[in-house]
Amino acid sequence: MRIVIALGGNALLQRGQKPDAAPQIDNVNIAVDALAPVAKEHELVVTHGNGPQVGVIALQSANDPKLSEPYPFDTLGAMTQGMIGYWLQHAFKNALPEREVVCTVNQTLVDANDPAFDDPTKFVGEVYNEEQAKQFEKERGWVMKADGKYFRRVVGSPIPVGIVEIETIKTLVDNGTTVICSGGGGIPVAQKDGKYVGLEAVIDKDRSGAVLSEELKADMFMILTDVPAVLDNYGTQDECEINRATPAELRDKGFAAGSMGPKVEAACQFVERTGGVAAIGRLADAQQIIAGTAGTIITTDGQYDPK
Amino acid sequence: MRIVIALGGNALLQRGQKPDAAPQIDNVNIAVDALAPVAKEHELVVTHGNGPQVGVIALQSANDPKLSEPYPFDTLGAMTQGMIGYWLQHAFKNALPEREVVCTVNQTLVDANDPAFDDPTKFVGEVYNEEQAKQFEKERGWVMKADGKYFRRVVGSPIPVGIVEIETIKTLVDNGTTVICSGGGGIPVAQKDGKYVGLEAVIDKDRSGAVLSEELKADMFMILTDVPAVLDNYGTQDECEINRATPAELRDKGFAAGSMGPKVEAACQFVERTGGVAAIGRLADAQQIIAGTAGTIITTDGQYDPK
Repeated sequence: MRIVIALGGNALLQRGQKPDAAPQIDNVNIAVDALAPVAKEHELVVTHGNGPQVGVIALQSANDPKLSEPYPFDTLGAMTQGMIGYWLQHAFKNALPEREVVCTVNQTLVDANDPAFDDPTKFVGEVYNEEQAKQFEKERGWVMKADGKYFRRVVGSPIPVGIVEIETIKTLVDNGTTVICSGGGGIPVAQKDGKYVGLEAVIDKDRSGAVLSEELKADMFMILTDVPAVLDNYGTQDECEINRATPAELRDKGFAAGSMGPKVEAACQFVERTGGVAAIGRLADAQQIIAGTAGTIITTDGQYDPK
Repeated sequence: MRIVIALGGNALLQRGQKPDAAPQIDNVNIAVDALAPVAKEHELVVTHGNGPQVGVIALQSANDPKLSEPYPFDTLGAMTQGMIGYWLQHAFKNALPEREVVCTVNQTLVDANDPAFDDPTKFVGEVYNEEQAKQFEKERGWVMKADGKYFRRVVGSPIPVGIVEIETIKTLVDNGTTVICSGGGGIPVAQKDGKYVGLEAVIDKDRSGAVLSEELKADMFMILTDVPAVLDNYGTQDECEINRATPAELRDKGFAAGSMGPKVEAACQFVERTGGVAAIGRLADAQQIIAGTAGTIITTDGQYDPK
C-alpha cells in the first residue's frame, strides 16, 4: 500500500517540554520506532506539523537585534522542514539502513484570493502590548488581534490546493524511497502573474496532507495524534470511540474547529475525493490501524477490509 | 553535461549586509539568473555554503532563554539547508517553470576518527570572555579557543567521505530534476556501532561538493565565488589569472589554507579521482566558464575542449 502519514508537531515537542533539540530528537526516535515497520512493509510518505517548532524560531528571529525584520513565515517554515526533516530522515535511515530515506523541502500552493487572507485568524509569534501592536501594524504591515489582554500577530491559514513539487515526490516514492515532505503543511506559496510568491501564512498540515495523499494516489491517509480515535459523545457518559465511519456520518456529528474538526475534515476530504481509506488514531497504534484493530477508519461505505 | 555547482554562502549574504531574509532572497535571485541558463541546458546540481547563515541562527539559538542548550550544529545545518534550499528552489522554479526543482535535506558522512576532532580549529558562534568560556567547557563540553582577546567555540572540520542520500539524489538527477543539496557541506554524520550519529562539526562545502560530484559521476564540478579565477603571483606586479591548469600545476603553487587553498584542493581532488573537469570562477561567469572563456579550468592534461 501507499500510505501518507501526518504526524502532529506536538508529538515531537510536547507541552511543558523544553524546546531543546535533544528531547525532540528523543520524541522523533519514539515516532520512528512506531513507523519504521510501516515504512518497511509499505510505500510511506511522512508529513508533520511544525506549530511548536516554528513558534520557537519565530521568537528567536523576532528577538534578534541584528535583523531589521524577523524572518517571514515562508522562510521560517522552510527552516523547520530542514530541522524536523533531518531528525526524521536520520532516525528512519538508522531504523531501515537498506532503504533510501529523504526529506524534500516543498511548497504548497494556495489561492492568492483565499478568503483566509481577508480575515486572518491564526495567532503566530509573541504577545505584545497595544502600543507595540500598533507600531508593528504601521511599520511591518502586520495584522494584530487581541489575544486575551495582549496582542499578537495573526496570519491567514488558506486552504491548500496543490503540492508544487508533487512530481518529484512521486518519482521518489515510485522508486522505493521513504519520503518526508510537506512539513508544517508545506511552505505557503501562491501564483501571481505566473510566478510563485512566498506568503506570510500557515497551512494546516492535515489539510495539506489530504492534498498530498490525493495527488500521490495514496491508498491510505493516516492522521496520527495523541488520542486513540475520534470520540463520539465526547465528555459525556456515552463517550465512545468511533472505529468505522463514512465521511457523511462523521460530518453529521459536527466536530469543533478547535479540536477534531480540521482532522476530520481533512480525512473526509481524502475519502470523498479519492475513494481511499483515511484513518485517525494514535501514533503508537500505526500498525494496528492498518490492520483495522485500532483508530477511526473512514471509508466510502464505512467498511474496512485490511489487505 | 552533468554539472555540480558549489555556491559560496557569502554570495547569498555579503559582508556588511543585514542578515534579513529579503536581501538574501535578492542575492539568491541574482545567483539563479546566472545559473538558470545552465540548469536549462544541463543536468544541474547546486550545493551551497552556509557560513554566514548558520552563524546568525547559532547566535539566535544561543541567546534563546527558553533553551537549556543551543541547537547543535547538525540541527542548525539542517535548518539552513531548509532555508537557503527553499530560496534557491523557489527562484529556480520561477525561472524554469517546466523543470522539476527540489532541495533535498542530506547528510554527509565523515570518519568518526578524523583527526579534525582531536584538534578542532573552526570558530563557530559568539565571542565570550574567559570566565564564560571556562563555564561552557565544563557545562557543555565545548572546546573553546582564544580568538583575539575573546574566546570562541571551535568545532572540527572533518574531511567528507560520502553523501548518505546519494542514491536518491542520483535518481532525481537521472530523472531531469534540478537538485539543490548538501547545503553547508551537508549535515555531518559519522557511523558508530552501525548507526549514523549527528556531529557537532562543520564540513567545507567545496570538499563535500567534490565528493558529491564524484559520486554523481558529474562531468564538471564548478566552484563559484566572487573572484574571476585563481590568480598566480597574487598581490605582485605579475599577478595574472590562471585559465588552464593540471592539478599538479595548481598544487605546486601552494595556495594558502585561508584563501584559495580549500577550493583548489577540492577542485584538484575531483579531477584526480575522476578525470573530469573542475573550474573555479565568478558566479556571473557560469556560462562563460562552461564555454571555456572565463575562470580557471582544471583538467588532467591542462586542456579543455568545450563540447
